Amino acid sequence: MRIGELARRTGVPVPTIKYYLREGLLPPGERTSPNQVRYAETHIRRLKLIRAMLEVGGLSIAAAREVLAEVDSPGRALHGMLGAAQSAVSRAAAERGTEEEWERAEREVSELVRRHGWAAKPGNPGWRALVQIVVTYRDLGRGELLDLLDRYAEAAGELALAELDMVARAPSADGKVEGVVLGTVLGDAAMAALRRIAQEDASLRAQIRPHSA
Amino acid sequence: MRIGELARRTGVPVPTIKYYLREGLLPPGERTSPNQVRYAETHIRRLKLIRAMLEVGGLSIAAAREVLAEVDSPGRALHGMLGAAQSAVSRAAAERGTEEEWERAEREVSELVRRHGWAAKPGNPGWRALVQIVVTYRDLGRGELLDLLDRYAEAAGELALAELDMVARAPSADGKVEGVVLGTVLGDAAMAALRRIAQEDASLRAQIRPHSA
Repeated sequence: MRIGELARRTGVPVPTIKYYLREGLLPPGERTSPNQVRYAETHIRRLKLIRAMLEVGGLSIAAAREVLAEVDSPGRALHGMLGAAQSAVSRAAAERGTEEEWERAEREVSELVRRHGWAAKPGNPGWRALVQIVVTYRDLGRGELLDLLDRYAEAAGELALAELDMVARAPSADGKVEGVVLGTVLGDAAMAALRRIAQEDASLRAQIRPHSA
Repeated sequence: MRIGELARRTGVPVPTIKYYLREGLLPPGERTSPNQVRYAETHIRRLKLIRAMLEVGGLSIAAAREVLAEVDSPGRALHGMLGAAQSAVSRAAAERGTEEEWERAEREVSELVRRHGWAAKPGNPGWRALVQIVVTYRDLGRGELLDLLDRYAEAAGELALAELDMVARAPSADGKVEGVVLGTVLGDAAMAALRRIAQEDASLRAQIRPHSA
């Protein structure tokens, strides 16, 4: 199909498609004559995946490119893909706090990981982020919020198993790859959205008024 | 204390403190002479909260200001505060998909909320985001991922109860308010971090290689 039809079928405007081509997010079409380029069904699918990452997942162009480069590496193991998708969606956390605070938090995160029987390593992008969060909670004198981390961890563990199982059941290799990207990027967004709804419900039921306490 | 001591005690550089003052994130100090301003202990606490929101929570200056304005409104009920904190940390989702797709997704989200016995309303910032996620999953032909939403919802519901309970147990009104902000902003970050770690573990155990499937 020509670029106009690609735009029509995906709802993505032609200038935006050209931008994705220039940025290397979308592979080029096949040039069939000096001024005609043909696009395939795979371009439709790829465009939808790009839009999902950018608009729903909130990734930057650079982060989306990083994930797609990983998706496009032939023979890549799913485990490596997951790591790439995770790194791309994780913001680098600023390091704050003293060396002692940092070391204490590192120890606590290690213990939490051990407690949940997880084989993950400190190089995981979530690991460093979690250490920073622990330092922050304590810096604000809200160490009691750390008790919640075990509840979060338990939920995260159960969800990860369900997510991986879902990915494993995808019929094709490409489907598995896409499942990892969607599970990581859209899974975070879905969890955050559901937390808002559940919190509103819990708050409506409690109706705690801080100034009448 | 003078601004230099405030900087030393919080680790936030003087120019950054001045920037937060100009942006209205930090309330002005007390002018004690034409060229001397004094800051109080409350400024230390507020600076730490600002850094937590910006650096760990990833909020923009505008979003942080919105949350703090809510925190500073006297007599504000916790429920309203939660709504403000939620709106500030939620990105506006682009609306994609046809009207029918959108309506179908709206119905499914309503049903999910009903299934979990939640009293939340469609105005909740998570609600619209979730509808968009459902549209996206289906647009990509990955409707089977929707089965995960009930698992996410169950986990989110349990966590919300634990979070609200933690907030309710804070000894002071200010502590409750801060707990809501931290629970919303840092809770999202903590959950995302733990999901990365749990996913790495699940993936290590599975070691599914897509191209050998």
